[in-house]
Amino acid sequence: MSSAGTTVNRQIVLAARPQGLPAPDDFRLVEGRVPEPRPGQVLIRHTHLGLAPAARLRMSETQSYAQPMALGDVVYGQAAGEVIESRHDGFRPGDSVVSINGSWQEYSVCGGAALTPADLALAPATLWLGLLGTSGMTAYVGLLDIGRPQAGETVVISAASGAVGSAVGQIARIKGCRAVGIVGGAAKCAYVVDELGFDACIDYRAADFAQQLAAACPKGVDVYFENVGGVVRDTVWPLLNQNGRVVLCGLISEYNDAQGAGPGWFPLLTKRLMVQGFILSDRLERRADFVRDMGAWYQAGRIRMREDLSHGLEQAVPAFIGMLQGRNFGKTLVKL
Amino acid sequence: MSSAGTTVNRQIVLAARPQGLPAPDDFRLVEGRVPEPRPGQVLIRHTHLGLAPAARLRMSETQSYAQPMALGDVVYGQAAGEVIESRHDGFRPGDSVVSINGSWQEYSVCGGAALTPADLALAPATLWLGLLGTSGMTAYVGLLDIGRPQAGETVVISAASGAVGSAVGQIARIKGCRAVGIVGGAAKCAYVVDELGFDACIDYRAADFAQQLAAACPKGVDVYFENVGGVVRDTVWPLLNQNGRVVLCGLISEYNDAQGAGPGWFPLLTKRLMVQGFILSDRLERRADFVRDMGAWYQAGRIRMREDLSHGLEQAVPAFIGMLQGRNFGKTLVKL
Repeated sequence: MSSAGTTVNRQIVLAARPQGLPAPDDFRLVEGRVPEPRPGQVLIRHTHLGLAPAARLRMSETQSYAQPMALGDVVYGQAAGEVIESRHDGFRPGDSVVSINGSWQEYSVCGGAALTPADLALAPATLWLGLLGTSGMTAYVGLLDIGRPQAGETVVISAASGAVGSAVGQIARIKGCRAVGIVGGAAKCAYVVDELGFDACIDYRAADFAQQLAAACPKGVDVYFENVGGVVRDTVWPLLNQNGRVVLCGLISEYNDAQGAGPGWFPLLTKRLMVQGFILSDRLERRADFVRDMGAWYQAGRIRMREDLSHGLEQAVPAFIGMLQGRNFGKTLVKL
Repeated sequence: MSSAGTTVNRQIVLAARPQGLPAPDDFRLVEGRVPEPRPGQVLIRHTHLGLAPAARLRMSETQSYAQPMALGDVVYGQAAGEVIESRHDGFRPGDSVVSINGSWQEYSVCGGAALTPADLALAPATLWLGLLGTSGMTAYVGLLDIGRPQAGETVVISAASGAVGSAVGQIARIKGCRAVGIVGGAAKCAYVVDELGFDACIDYRAADFAQQLAAACPKGVDVYFENVGGVVRDTVWPLLNQNGRVVLCGLISEYNDAQGAGPGWFPLLTKRLMVQGFILSDRLERRADFVRDMGAWYQAGRIRMREDLSHGLEQAVPAFIGMLQGRNFGKTLVKL
């Protein structure tokens, strides 16, 4: 390990783009130089790296939500450490910080935007890479702002023993929800229930995974916090209740062969898409606004609708069948 | 055709559950009696029926968002007509009304909740079944409240010449958006552009549909108002921009064989699910709230996170590979 003052900065660089699961040969350990901070930057000696599955996305050539790494780049990742030298007014040597793109190396320079202070009086440095870092914040924002759990609802979390998932379930409990985890293996199941306090946890490798999950969600699933995709998602899917919310945070099981196009789920994640199923009868409180606006637009000649009019009750049947075949042209009406 | 005063009410009932596309033999014309309104109800003589593809969903035995019809039921649908007899304080004989479940018959009784007045001074009765009825309101609420179009954005609408789609595109234009329709056939294309004023319209039956659609959306697609599903959706999908919104209003092309379960899109519609792709970096304005809450929960012992700690920079690679295989247990960290 290097220590402060040396000019050697050991780094792990991307040597080849992984095909599927990364292999050790896709990476190479090199010795670089400790960089000099420019004005507005600090030099950090890393004490810890924080690894996250999303880094896999940057190893592919395909654009996802993050820029792909170039071959030879130091591998992207977060780091916690100590400021060694500062040319930034907000940080002094000795400060504990987390850098969002410290990368897999012993030293990095970083500007203020990617840097957050790590208050060691509140929690140790490693927690600022986890519970109080982007993992915890992903759980917090994703569950509360997108999942919007209500007390008494059931929240299901995949990868529930992981950094994000474990925080999601605990926040769900704090908010009065039933938290049901999904993990791989009995040890993780026990940990999630016994130590984190989830109401239940199911091993997706179990032969009767679907039955166990359904039994653990007797009132269905209101919020699904999705980290993994694949068969886990497909098993949760039929259990979702009306007005359920799916927080699509990760698709770890699909990262190794993600293509980033097509009609599947991957673009939902990388493009932050929102898909909302919608039935008018849930939203009738908007009727007065609708009649006011549409009436005005109609009377001003700004909007119109073609009518596809059949005559006589008997014509309802062929008109209906034709409509399902796309043979109607405009609003399908039958005049009696 | 019956006239007011007769006791015969001709009705079309569901004779058999359609297999795939409905056939004429799935329906039967019968003669019923004109019903008597109970207190709080009115008797309506129908002048027009409004047909909508969603009625197909009720013809299957599977529960969708609506109760299935029973065999022998008068076929579900909306009707416009005139109040013949009223036992409801809000309506008088001669009033023009729309009943949301008048069904395919000549007369119906209806309580107040399913009844809306049709102001003929504002628009003719047929418009109260279309542009000013549930079709128009579906367009209005779906586009404005869920799609949230911003001026300058591109809105793509499938089934663009239909009742809902044609209103969506015109509202999009009113809101300053580029409106691009998708329809089947050249006549509908011409109508949508020439008469409704959409910026472009593409025939999905064209051999180069995908290329034409991409060319019509040079800045990608910000809002997709989905009425049909299937290959049309799959073609729009790669064009969606970051933070795009998909208003899932219908899946007409899938109604004839919908199953209502599994991981596909159908439950998204029938259960009004919301799926939101989510990347933390878009939501950093929540950081202060997060640190306040999570810090307090952590210090109160209400939340914790297991750490999966490796030692030494070289261990970053195996730790990362293991994490992608689910072999980590908690937040994956490397101590340097």
